[in-house]
Amino acid sequence: MQRILSSQLPAHPHETVTIAGWIRRRRLLKSVAFLIVRDAEGLSQVVVAEPETREQLEHLTEESVVEVIATVTPNEQAPGGVELTRPKIRVLSAVRSPLPFELHRPALAAALPTQLDHAALALRHPARRSALRIAATVTAGFRAALTEQRFVEIQTPKIVASATESGANVFRLDYFGRPAYLAQSPQFYKQLMVGVFERVFEVGPVFRAEPSDTARHLAQYTSLDAEMGFIADHRDVMATLTRTLAVMTEPLFEKPIVPAEIPAVHFTEALRIAGAPHDEPDLAPAHERAVGEWARREHGSEFVYVTGYPMRKRPFYTHPDPADPTYSNGFDLLFRGLEIVTGGQRLHTYEDYVEALTRAGEPLEPYGGYLDGFRYGMPPHGGWAIGLERFVARLTETPNVREVTAFPRDLHRITP
Amino acid sequence: MQRILSSQLPAHPHETVTIAGWIRRRRLLKSVAFLIVRDAEGLSQVVVAEPETREQLEHLTEESVVEVIATVTPNEQAPGGVELTRPKIRVLSAVRSPLPFELHRPALAAALPTQLDHAALALRHPARRSALRIAATVTAGFRAALTEQRFVEIQTPKIVASATESGANVFRLDYFGRPAYLAQSPQFYKQLMVGVFERVFEVGPVFRAEPSDTARHLAQYTSLDAEMGFIADHRDVMATLTRTLAVMTEPLFEKPIVPAEIPAVHFTEALRIAGAPHDEPDLAPAHERAVGEWARREHGSEFVYVTGYPMRKRPFYTHPDPADPTYSNGFDLLFRGLEIVTGGQRLHTYEDYVEALTRAGEPLEPYGGYLDGFRYGMPPHGGWAIGLERFVARLTETPNVREVTAFPRDLHRITP
Repeated sequence: MQRILSSQLPAHPHETVTIAGWIRRRRLLKSVAFLIVRDAEGLSQVVVAEPETREQLEHLTEESVVEVIATVTPNEQAPGGVELTRPKIRVLSAVRSPLPFELHRPALAAALPTQLDHAALALRHPARRSALRIAATVTAGFRAALTEQRFVEIQTPKIVASATESGANVFRLDYFGRPAYLAQSPQFYKQLMVGVFERVFEVGPVFRAEPSDTARHLAQYTSLDAEMGFIADHRDVMATLTRTLAVMTEPLFEKPIVPAEIPAVHFTEALRIAGAPHDEPDLAPAHERAVGEWARREHGSEFVYVTGYPMRKRPFYTHPDPADPTYSNGFDLLFRGLEIVTGGQRLHTYEDYVEALTRAGEPLEPYGGYLDGFRYGMPPHGGWAIGLERFVARLTETPNVREVTAFPRDLHRITP
Repeated sequence: MQRILSSQLPAHPHETVTIAGWIRRRRLLKSVAFLIVRDAEGLSQVVVAEPETREQLEHLTEESVVEVIATVTPNEQAPGGVELTRPKIRVLSAVRSPLPFELHRPALAAALPTQLDHAALALRHPARRSALRIAATVTAGFRAALTEQRFVEIQTPKIVASATESGANVFRLDYFGRPAYLAQSPQFYKQLMVGVFERVFEVGPVFRAEPSDTARHLAQYTSLDAEMGFIADHRDVMATLTRTLAVMTEPLFEKPIVPAEIPAVHFTEALRIAGAPHDEPDLAPAHERAVGEWARREHGSEFVYVTGYPMRKRPFYTHPDPADPTYSNGFDLLFRGLEIVTGGQRLHTYEDYVEALTRAGEPLEPYGGYLDGFRYGMPPHGGWAIGLERFVARLTETPNVREVTAFPRDLHRITP
């Protein structure tokens, strides 16, 4: 008999059906026993009145996998208005060890390290599953929005020859006897691919040998990258990003959370709003929170762009603001007071790259394959990178990014 | 004035428009000059009769990026039935170096290593762009087909603590002072996630420190992975894979290339078809080609499943064939005579894993986080992995996987 899902039960009253899933809970009362079975779609309640099935149930423990053949019986008190009666239970996989923590409570009670040690089990909790489903939803929305806007998906190398993008915080590996590094971002490659497709995006892992042990840093995270050519400046990039974020978040909320136009403040104005000294080179987390509060108060927006970061704090490929080249055409997007996107306009002429690298005291040779793209003609372009786990943590109001990551990697953790 | 794309020109006869793109070719005739501009959608022909514009054109070289404001003039001989006349040309990015090879010929004439050295340029050739677009199309189809079938997208770690899945061919890296490895596949993680979502998929990079220098091996490639629970055996996996492949390839061909049911032969029968000795443990490339030929001849199919590979050649997590446990419930899918997918049913009880690892002489401790999933209840399950670049190479009849990979990594190559 074909297995059906818990969500399909109400459509089969009085029929004999097969369900399958994990034992979420057993309740062994005196005259009757209840078995709650979890599957991909929800829960089913199984009523056990028969002595031999009850005895079988007494020997089964939570998270064992069972198949149940039973009759669908309407019962207003049961979840979905139906329960399963007169069950035959077949065990597909029996759990014989005690669970390290209980899964059926509203919140996981175990300490976070214990949860992460037993990620295969902890991820089955509804809160953890929900966060990962949200990650899948916004990722699908990212791709759908960009495909719709003529972006082409690319896959780029994660192993690179030189630690060029930023000297520190790279993982070094042995590449057939030669030193190599894990890519910190697809930045260079997505820019080169603008020369091929004009507009590209990539969803993939990036690696940061980040010595910070905080609630928002991971050694591997998922970056949602996009890059687009033939722009006037960074404002074209921001407009595309705003449209993309609207599609990404649309399925999650009844009322749209992305305004048609996200408020934007210049960096110098952001410092003023945050009450920071006017010569600060960057926004500290407390400043970001203050700007986030301001946007909510003044514009009713949970999102706010900060534009025009000082050139000295942005990477060498950043395009300066033509009106005042000490500031850049780079931006950050804050969501609920936290930076979740970095983006901007990039340099696009070969001459500008040579000058920028020379000014930074960098040799040109390690950048050879990258500079090739600009030597052979690149349009004005720009793009952004969204940190998926940070965004999902903020969307779900989860304090630690590790709680919305399937198997996080950090300074101390490399298993499971 | 808003830029329009080459494909939009026929909709604007006699209007003044702005286009932008790369100079594909110039033809400087005596009385008139032609400029062919390439953008994301195709080519535009610009006719230059004005002396000052012609002089400007004489100083511009191929691949320079230009913006052209001109009049759309119907001309039956021109591509798309229109050409651009009375142009004003603005240079967005001038190429001042000679190109290492020409891009406007039907095939790239440079040797493959030269193309790969200048990938940022070579990828602009129509043949290379087309292959990467096909990769994007089949990847999108993979996700669409699986999402439709209740699979949830996951992202899993690419840095792992032990080289457990297969001892050799792993890249070793320095993880905050400890040894670690790049994941050869998401196998263990996708299996664990069956315990969370029942059905999962992942599109991501996998890493093989593959010493083979062949036309079909890469050190990094894109793996299209899926895993599903509550199956009867590997045939449920094959049915889902067949449906998925049909969606993936549907946009590429006028006539569907995936039959409703892909022919399947048992390994022992495949050996007989290939004329190989009956005690061979695996299929050699020549055997795969022979089986591919047989499927085309006998079933009119370019795809053929080979099932029941001997257990001794499959990984420890492979489920044996209950009817004869020297053979497995593992399969390969051959496409045009080449293996492009490996899949099968996996073991699912904790006891079976302990026994399989013990039989293989493996300590249990490095598998701790993996075994956790089975200790705490896992349904019968199975899945597959498609090698994206190999599949695209076969689809486009390209001899070398490096030609369909944006920036390939192999034994000798780590740049650009």
